[in-house]
Amino acid sequence: MKIGILTSGGDAPGLNAVIRGIVYTGIATGKCEEFVGFRNGWKGVVDGDTVPLGRHEIKGIHKQGGTILGTSRTNPFDGIGGVDRINEVMREQGIDAIVAIGGEGTLAAAKRLTDAGINIVGVPKTVDNDLDATDYTFGFDTAVQIATDAMDRLRTTGDSHGRCMIAEVMGRHVGWIALHSGMAAGAHAILIPEQKTSVDQILEWVTSAHDRGRAPLVVVAEGFSLDTMDDAHSERGLDAFGRPRLGGIGELLAPIIEERTGIETRATTLGHIQRGGTPSAYDRVLATRLGMAALDAAIAGRWGHMVGLRGTDIITVPFADALGKLKTVPQERYDEARILFG
Amino acid sequence: MKIGILTSGGDAPGLNAVIRGIVYTGIATGKCEEFVGFRNGWKGVVDGDTVPLGRHEIKGIHKQGGTILGTSRTNPFDGIGGVDRINEVMREQGIDAIVAIGGEGTLAAAKRLTDAGINIVGVPKTVDNDLDATDYTFGFDTAVQIATDAMDRLRTTGDSHGRCMIAEVMGRHVGWIALHSGMAAGAHAILIPEQKTSVDQILEWVTSAHDRGRAPLVVVAEGFSLDTMDDAHSERGLDAFGRPRLGGIGELLAPIIEERTGIETRATTLGHIQRGGTPSAYDRVLATRLGMAALDAAIAGRWGHMVGLRGTDIITVPFADALGKLKTVPQERYDEARILFG
Amino acid sequence: MKIGILTSGGDAPGLNAVIRGIVYTGIATGKCEEFVGFRNGWKGVVDGDTVPLGRHEIKGIHKQGGTILGTSRTNPFDGIGGVDRINEVMREQGIDAIVAIGGEGTLAAAKRLTDAGINIVGVPKTVDNDLDATDYTFGFDTAVQIATDAMDRLRTTGDSHGRCMIAEVMGRHVGWIALHSGMAAGAHAILIPEQKTSVDQILEWVTSAHDRGRAPLVVVAEGFSLDTMDDAHSERGLDAFGRPRLGGIGELLAPIIEERTGIETRATTLGHIQRGGTPSAYDRVLATRLGMAALDAAIAGRWGHMVGLRGTDIITVPFADALGKLKTVPQERYDEARILFG
Amino acid sequence: MKIGILTSGGDAPGLNAVIRGIVYTGIATGKCEEFVGFRNGWKGVVDGDTVPLGRHEIKGIHKQGGTILGTSRTNPFDGIGGVDRINEVMREQGIDAIVAIGGEGTLAAAKRLTDAGINIVGVPKTVDNDLDATDYTFGFDTAVQIATDAMDRLRTTGDSHGRCMIAEVMGRHVGWIALHSGMAAGAHAILIPEQKTSVDQILEWVTSAHDRGRAPLVVVAEGFSLDTMDDAHSERGLDAFGRPRLGGIGELLAPIIEERTGIETRATTLGHIQRGGTPSAYDRVLATRLGMAALDAAIAGRWGHMVGLRGTDIITVPFADALGKLKTVPQERYDEARILFG
Repeated sequence: MKIGILTSGGDAPGLNAVIRGIVYTGIATGKCEEFVGFRNGWKGVVDGDTVPLGRHEIKGIHKQGGTILGTSRTNPFDGIGGVDRINEVMREQGIDAIVAIGGEGTLAAAKRLTDAGINIVGVPKTVDNDLDATDYTFGFDTAVQIATDAMDRLRTTGDSHGRCMIAEVMGRHVGWIALHSGMAAGAHAILIPEQKTSVDQILEWVTSAHDRGRAPLVVVAEGFSLDTMDDAHSERGLDAFGRPRLGGIGELLAPIIEERTGIETRATTLGHIQRGGTPSAYDRVLATRLGMAALDAAIAGRWGHMVGLRGTDIITVPFADALGKLKTVPQERYDEARILFG
Repeated sequence: MKIGILTSGGDAPGLNAVIRGIVYTGIATGKCEEFVGFRNGWKGVVDGDTVPLGRHEIKGIHKQGGTILGTSRTNPFDGIGGVDRINEVMREQGIDAIVAIGGEGTLAAAKRLTDAGINIVGVPKTVDNDLDATDYTFGFDTAVQIATDAMDRLRTTGDSHGRCMIAEVMGRHVGWIALHSGMAAGAHAILIPEQKTSVDQILEWVTSAHDRGRAPLVVVAEGFSLDTMDDAHSERGLDAFGRPRLGGIGELLAPIIEERTGIETRATTLGHIQRGGTPSAYDRVLATRLGMAALDAAIAGRWGHMVGLRGTDIITVPFADALGKLKTVPQERYDEARILFG
Repeated sequence: MKIGILTSGGDAPGLNAVIRGIVYTGIATGKCEEFVGFRNGWKGVVDGDTVPLGRHEIKGIHKQGGTILGTSRTNPFDGIGGVDRINEVMREQGIDAIVAIGGEGTLAAAKRLTDAGINIVGVPKTVDNDLDATDYTFGFDTAVQIATDAMDRLRTTGDSHGRCMIAEVMGRHVGWIALHSGMAAGAHAILIPEQKTSVDQILEWVTSAHDRGRAPLVVVAEGFSLDTMDDAHSERGLDAFGRPRLGGIGELLAPIIEERTGIETRATTLGHIQRGGTPSAYDRVLATRLGMAALDAAIAGRWGHMVGLRGTDIITVPFADALGKLKTVPQERYDEARILFG
Repeated sequence: MKIGILTSGGDAPGLNAVIRGIVYTGIATGKCEEFVGFRNGWKGVVDGDTVPLGRHEIKGIHKQGGTILGTSRTNPFDGIGGVDRINEVMREQGIDAIVAIGGEGTLAAAKRLTDAGINIVGVPKTVDNDLDATDYTFGFDTAVQIATDAMDRLRTTGDSHGRCMIAEVMGRHVGWIALHSGMAAGAHAILIPEQKTSVDQILEWVTSAHDRGRAPLVVVAEGFSLDTMDDAHSERGLDAFGRPRLGGIGELLAPIIEERTGIETRATTLGHIQRGGTPSAYDRVLATRLGMAALDAAIAGRWGHMVGLRGTDIITVPFADALGKLKTVPQERYDEARILFG
């Protein structure tokens, strides 16, 4: 069997460990000895742009962030893509099956292609940890660690100046990174997309911490909205008052908190540093195991399935069961974290 | 209600986060407003040696390694201890219940005391991750990360000098730290107590890596034995040939590998750096959640139970179900890791 | 003798190590046994707001970022301050001398006060490393390390997506942090306030890196200006085209680069994470030594002097020689770094 | 001109940054476009074993520990080596000059070869920082940071258990790493080869810290001797009592301290983790600048010179002036550090 591997969508620490897990397992067990990588996600599939993947190419890559294959947001059904084109490329290059490593969009495309008869196994990738069919996704632990380290640093500045510090972290639709890093850093308020919150409530958390002699630390997911912001506002990039929004939600909140409480307030947007660089040991182990299981699934012909983590076990799940359900932060986890605000 | 907290046995990153989780939850919810800490484990209990624990004492401690309460290996049934003495101390100081944070030994003592009518809730602590009733224990993730970072460093030295590098990690009875850090670091051999292995097998792994142009990296748990070492040898501190053993198993293996393969070999014993210092974000979150759940269990009067992690949920388990079962690395997890040796 | 210590201006990693160095040296040598800290910089001096500083207060603080004394930007000559007020506070509290830890503004105020007869020794503090009378200031090494770590992370994302990544680092008037972190990270362009640069030149560096198959990495100091931006523009917050500027220079450059080269470009502003948190070992040693030398200078009555680093030696310099000269990046250091752009 | 580069002796973080600095400068300035690397130090020179070094080979290597060229302790005057053989290899391969990156031994060999007419420029390498002709050597800062991080970790364990913790760090002949890391970590005793010390003095430092409620932290350089150990003892691997010594000096001291003070004592030998892995930003900048200056020195024909750091400047020094003088920790630096013991 000859297997093609692709990485698609935003990069995440651990992608290379998945690739290495797949290839190493195939070669070391003799189950599959021929691998290619598609360059830049689905773009490489529709373009037939491949690179060989052997022992040499995967040496030591599990320690590197990003993806050695490159990635893109190309949709295989846009333009010249589609089932026929992909079948053609696979036939031309003698590729029997694809392991697609990507997020919701990639896996949805993979499902459509599998339904049309193409042999695909999926590996879920989302730094935001918002996929329902797996307990955790690789990259999430690294992002939480980086955000926590950054907040540990921000905090000493807040303490020294008596300031409120705001850290804006990743999380467009879900608040997992904010929840975990906020709990790890000891934040006085955690603001997540799942919980629209009023300005007054935020001010209460901030002033309560300040009154106890603490420098308030607020972590906010990039997708958080104030309760006065309707979804249209958020989508159109408007702020809480319907004005065009510059910068992220953190920079929107800072002046509001400062004006209303009199506490000097500074926002920092962590941005891309959360998703690059060396993966944590946790993510390396998880990504390696997912890659190994994906190879096994391919050998077993479990097309249309993706691998995932359940407890300490690696499982496989049909795409149909895994897609379309955003894993949001449940109310009880938010309530649990909220106890620590004050 | 007034609750006393103790930490017992070897320190682990996250102990302070557990303490903070317990106290913070009690105070912030109003469920319990009075806490004391017993100093130095069970010793403080039998001595009646306590310190107050309030908002001030727990401020920011979740970021610190070790335990602010001190710890010891004192057994509460040794010497002047025992049920009567502990009842007396609790009555004198008006303490209604104890949260005991410790390993197998601590929890076994806690069970005996609970059976005798003392109100105790347990929180499992073992850097080695060898407790059966929880998926992971806090401190383990930090230890794995430290060991992985160390091996990443050892590796560049191995590559530069063409050496075999051996890293001896913690794990007296189980190989979890070796398994995870070895997989994260890309080790060519992982040697754990659960898998007695022959010198010939180890040499095969080492030379195979060397033949592929790699600097062999071997991770060995401190409790690993060669198949020629019977348990009596190990316990009496004898080496594979029945000679008195100096240093750990890593230092025992290094000259054997060097002599038999001709590859220059160096051993490093990571030792105590694996269990101290700032806990990882993962461990801070886990420890905080376990502490919060322990307070809830105490409020609910679930005496004789310990808290644990199952998947992403915090659960409670009766001591009786949790004790006496060492959680070893299962064969399938070792087989999985072993594929990556070569 | 009784000495009062203050920290003023923006926080920097190492402030606490300076404080500990001063107090520890006084107590351990018996040269000075009484210390107080002024809270929140000069504000605490004019308000007579002091806290005792002894062995207990300084225990382990050299490892902590920020300042345990708090800081502010209060000028001692504003409002109720001035020579008479400070003399009054010192007399009332029996304080014989002040060690002032701060930047250019603080040291200028200290000079004026010394000229008026108040006993002051200075310790220079600037994360930006822009003081002429010392080879390096504490906090700089930590900031460079944090910026370098962040760029190492940004780079893997750039490589995976084929993007140009821009990192905006501290440096309002000088480019030292950009120069060192850019060289450490292997940046393809380093943009500093000392070197106004044209858009065309920047585009040439970016496209040249891109043409060699690299993901261009640009580090820009916050105070950098394009050659089309006159100083009035920069000061009034206008962009290169005279439009009101939103966000920092990094966010200004990103769309320009993307539009003109067609290379997807993302900017990250590192902001406050560069100045908080645990100081590097280098900064701990430097700050400790500066604090120790400041105590010695006070004991020796070297009022009107500040301590500094020259080679590997700690020296003292009169305020008059130290102030008014911004230490900018010299042309030869920039030329040296520039060789590595391409 | 065609230049050959070699790295010799123990590896040090920054070796690759030196190599990149040399090659990059040559290529980017057009001053020298042809480079080869000798594999495994002088061994590659006498064997004529070279690899090409161009843009591709040096891409991103400044972030990697170790040396991409490999290293060995081969002496070019042993066996088949010597002036004639090296001349022959250089002539055969058209190599005009050598840049030799190594320690005292390498530079001494380089001097002999230069005296015999071979074109060599040196770059000093010693993690121990014991070369007199440069303020600092690359690798030292990284080693100090790693040792400091490790001691920060050991300390929380010491505090929790009320133990004395000993950290044995590198430094066979000089105590620079111990001095700096001990000062950065706040050690209560720093034991270095330059200062023979009595057991009684060490016990006094340890008990004094213990009496003040601290967990004593002792840092000891591997080459330290008790005053009862004569040099013959040390060299023959005997302990303070003339018995054969097992393990390092840290393991020798631990039982002595424990027995004599009653304070539980644990030793950790940091070993090889101090010299591998990603170099610190400081070391990357220093090593890059040294490499660039070495290329310039070669272009200028400054044979028989090595580059070094003086203050913030990169200088060149004749081998004759640089060799034979071990840079030990001066008495005043030790006295300064000693104040902080207690």
